[in-house]
Amino acid sequence: MGLTRRTFLTRVGQAGGFSAAVVAMQGLGLFPTRSALAEPRPSAPPGVGKGVRVVILGGGIAGLVAAYELRALGYECVLLEARSRPGGRNWTVRGGDTVELLDGSVQHCDWDEGHYQNFGPARLPSVHKLMLDYCKKLGVPLQVEVNTTRSSFLQNDQANGGRPVVQRQAINDTRGHVSELLSKSIRGGALDQELSKQDRERMLEFLRLYGPLDSADKYVGSDRAGYKVAPGAGDVEGELSQPLDMHTLLDANFWNGMLFEETFDWQATMFQPVGGMDRIPYAFAKALGDLVRFEAPVTAIRKTANGVRVEYTQHSAAQQVEADYCICTMPLSVLKKTNNDFSPEFKSVIEQSTYGDAYKIAWESRRFWEQDFNIYGGLEFVSQGCSPVWFPSEGFFSERGVFVSGYTEEHVTPLKTMTLSQKFEESRKTIERLHPGYGIELEKPMYVNWGLVRYNEGSWIDSYGAGQLRNASAVSQGAASSAPRLIHKGNPNYEQLLQPDGPIYFSGDHLSHIVGWQEGAAESSHRVIALLNERVQKTRSAGKQG
Amino acid sequence: MGLTRRTFLTRVGQAGGFSAAVVAMQGLGLFPTRSALAEPRPSAPPGVGKGVRVVILGGGIAGLVAAYELRALGYECVLLEARSRPGGRNWTVRGGDTVELLDGSVQHCDWDEGHYQNFGPARLPSVHKLMLDYCKKLGVPLQVEVNTTRSSFLQNDQANGGRPVVQRQAINDTRGHVSELLSKSIRGGALDQELSKQDRERMLEFLRLYGPLDSADKYVGSDRAGYKVAPGAGDVEGELSQPLDMHTLLDANFWNGMLFEETFDWQATMFQPVGGMDRIPYAFAKALGDLVRFEAPVTAIRKTANGVRVEYTQHSAAQQVEADYCICTMPLSVLKKTNNDFSPEFKSVIEQSTYGDAYKIAWESRRFWEQDFNIYGGLEFVSQGCSPVWFPSEGFFSERGVFVSGYTEEHVTPLKTMTLSQKFEESRKTIERLHPGYGIELEKPMYVNWGLVRYNEGSWIDSYGAGQLRNASAVSQGAASSAPRLIHKGNPNYEQLLQPDGPIYFSGDHLSHIVGWQEGAAESSHRVIALLNERVQKTRSAGKQG
Repeated sequence: MGLTRRTFLTRVGQAGGFSAAVVAMQGLGLFPTRSALAEPRPSAPPGVGKGVRVVILGGGIAGLVAAYELRALGYECVLLEARSRPGGRNWTVRGGDTVELLDGSVQHCDWDEGHYQNFGPARLPSVHKLMLDYCKKLGVPLQVEVNTTRSSFLQNDQANGGRPVVQRQAINDTRGHVSELLSKSIRGGALDQELSKQDRERMLEFLRLYGPLDSADKYVGSDRAGYKVAPGAGDVEGELSQPLDMHTLLDANFWNGMLFEETFDWQATMFQPVGGMDRIPYAFAKALGDLVRFEAPVTAIRKTANGVRVEYTQHSAAQQVEADYCICTMPLSVLKKTNNDFSPEFKSVIEQSTYGDAYKIAWESRRFWEQDFNIYGGLEFVSQGCSPVWFPSEGFFSERGVFVSGYTEEHVTPLKTMTLSQKFEESRKTIERLHPGYGIELEKPMYVNWGLVRYNEGSWIDSYGAGQLRNASAVSQGAASSAPRLIHKGNPNYEQLLQPDGPIYFSGDHLSHIVGWQEGAAESSHRVIALLNERVQKTRSAGKQG
Repeated sequence: MGLTRRTFLTRVGQAGGFSAAVVAMQGLGLFPTRSALAEPRPSAPPGVGKGVRVVILGGGIAGLVAAYELRALGYECVLLEARSRPGGRNWTVRGGDTVELLDGSVQHCDWDEGHYQNFGPARLPSVHKLMLDYCKKLGVPLQVEVNTTRSSFLQNDQANGGRPVVQRQAINDTRGHVSELLSKSIRGGALDQELSKQDRERMLEFLRLYGPLDSADKYVGSDRAGYKVAPGAGDVEGELSQPLDMHTLLDANFWNGMLFEETFDWQATMFQPVGGMDRIPYAFAKALGDLVRFEAPVTAIRKTANGVRVEYTQHSAAQQVEADYCICTMPLSVLKKTNNDFSPEFKSVIEQSTYGDAYKIAWESRRFWEQDFNIYGGLEFVSQGCSPVWFPSEGFFSERGVFVSGYTEEHVTPLKTMTLSQKFEESRKTIERLHPGYGIELEKPMYVNWGLVRYNEGSWIDSYGAGQLRNASAVSQGAASSAPRLIHKGNPNYEQLLQPDGPIYFSGDHLSHIVGWQEGAAESSHRVIALLNERVQKTRSAGKQG
């Protein structure tokens, strides 16, 4: 066109005003739109899969999404799921359920009617568009998951005499001190080279609001950090909390807990299905009907002349299913123990992979956090012991509830060598650290470690055996990871599994850059379906030509 | 006892361990507990009000709370309310409603079934304990009000070429630049006097996380600020947003919008009644039964030998009610026009008071903010035009919804001199600034200015005519008020109205330090009831002695 972007935009601006210019800029990708997020579904000609048989291994989110989308495209699908329930790691435990772990332990859950814990994924970020779209499409009602509250606590045995600090105070006192120090530096001339005189003046003005600082540019507290005596009626004017000094805050090292809410996937607004995360896989399973075969653990994955044959057992009998293609969403930790005909380069990568051992401990109790501390949802962090604590976002204002005390990879904690009842006592201790005197109210604990769950044997992929992932334990400990995340693109082992092994495609969150999230699983299956569609179309058109 | 606090705590700690020490510290007020917040209700001997008649003027939250609590204490109550509905400023407008303003304008609301707007209060902070307790007691179901989301926008015509910036970017890039500048200052020796060597080192370490900064202590962006291309499956590693430079951020002056969420009353977690804020006054009214007389505007407040006589009209007929005491919750703006026998010092204060003129404009439209921008609830701010924009926290994921574009005191905006349709076009322009191309989707606007609402004639008290309140317009514009708020305790006019005028007590949010909030109204009535209880008990015991 012979127009530079700038000239084009100026002309559009002149002709149509600011809005027209901006609409044009959106078209050029210069303006924030939803285009940064995933498109709702893979596009392909309708009926592209007609007459093509696909066997899908694993009824977690990756498998369910694959079956749902492939069926819509006309493929003939069968999904094999080892358990009697759909969802994989998307697992909600309720009263009446039994938790059997690979270490032989058996726990019976005796929580009240309506209480539950999502031992796998428990939140849906609003930036995870695929998952939100599936909830809408499948009629799964969502409610807000409160990931951030200013009323919850942070605690460190080594600082502030072990006394917890309410987050509104830690967050706002920290910003206050940082602002005061920067203001002092600027006024002392430390940034004369860095900033123009005008910018220095604006920066000082900004810091007065940001801190906020008083007229002498000192941080002396703020209503943001909360009150010792709240404002009330009549002459109750309120009394601000005494600010924590910067030295104590540096000692306390609350940073991970404080910055938790800023990590992209954990930012408000977040959601959860009403009644438990497993409403999603159950809705998928209902939509898919008898295409899903439950209690059908895979015993072998074989390549055949025309595709694949998957052997499995059901009702104690050996069964098998033949198909043109396979989408395998089984965890690599399980796959490495399953008989298969994979090519050596795939076998090798699968063998090298290692998985995390994230655990959660959940308790039932009176909602003391709401009733006595005005904490509604959100997380608390301790520097020693089981962390974080995670309060429920359902059933607000009811009498009792279920909450988490401890959620991280277990091998980085002292829990690893403890008996189950010792683990529970360690978890209870966390509540004593944060809310002294309340530990005795905790009842009916339940423990799940994904490394000990049959058919999973791991919480999420930790390593492909070459290169490195971002530190997966940081995910659950609430570390505010520095940008950019470690990227596994370029890792040769990862890249290997992005390829099909003949008729077999691999899918799951472990083949995405959103590890440990349902969105990664859904995106991964969308990707594999797009590859499969392309191949089927090419094969068909080659067949016609031949 | 001869024990210092420290000695006492050390001994308790030795005997009972850390928890015991902390429980003891709670008793000494050294530990965060809920004691900083209001107690649930005024305490008094049961039946204290037996045989005592009280007339309550005004069926807003202050009046409803007064009637509810007084009745429970045995008082004989009558509540007079001018309108046919309870709630006062707690007013929810729905399809089928008509809005008549004092300027003669009449608007018919034609929104879809289930849609509504709270034109008065629209959120319940979790630190407003009285209101949450009433909701629980009255069986009003609550849901989360999303006051904070990282996905909503900020915009200023004068900066960044007028292009909006997503809040996750403004907030996190700002902290990044501040951290980089402070780090540079410290490394340059600017704070060698201020901080010990050890603290400087820890501070530098902290700033690397806080920014976050890279290994060269530069801010180069972060996943907290969001992505240009979101991470996905396969080789889609994601591409971080380009950070906005500090100069642009200083230009943009987004501070009020960015810091809005940190103001004490606006901090997460917040709630709203399911179905509209007026579920609260309707629940009160249902509980109170025929104690409440609707369509009963007060025409005169008279002192009598034994108490008070309140004259009012109902069904076009003059009526009156006699009582021992009166609790008057009518706005001073209306009271100054009502015949009364108040003492001169009260008349003078009431006459001097002035009220704010806050307005809201609400529209119905497709939920473009959810569907096209992944914004769920939360507020957006523009520097010119109608601000803020406030998206609904109910009906997430449904097709259409009602949202606010413009909520502040009107006299500080250009709207004041505009016709109604010009105001609506100005409001629509705000959406064009934030979401160009979407303004045309807005339909069925509704406008309420509380200065033009009969029986209110003002949104909240602005001034007592002596001294000063915190700038009330800042309340709704989202200014992050610097600490401490301006306090009206000590203002002689305010103090005057805290006293009873003979048998007449004044109550309402205007007699609290929580102006413009329902909690202030509830607290004020609790205060007045405590005073009344004391007086009744004294009078009774004096009578017995006499």
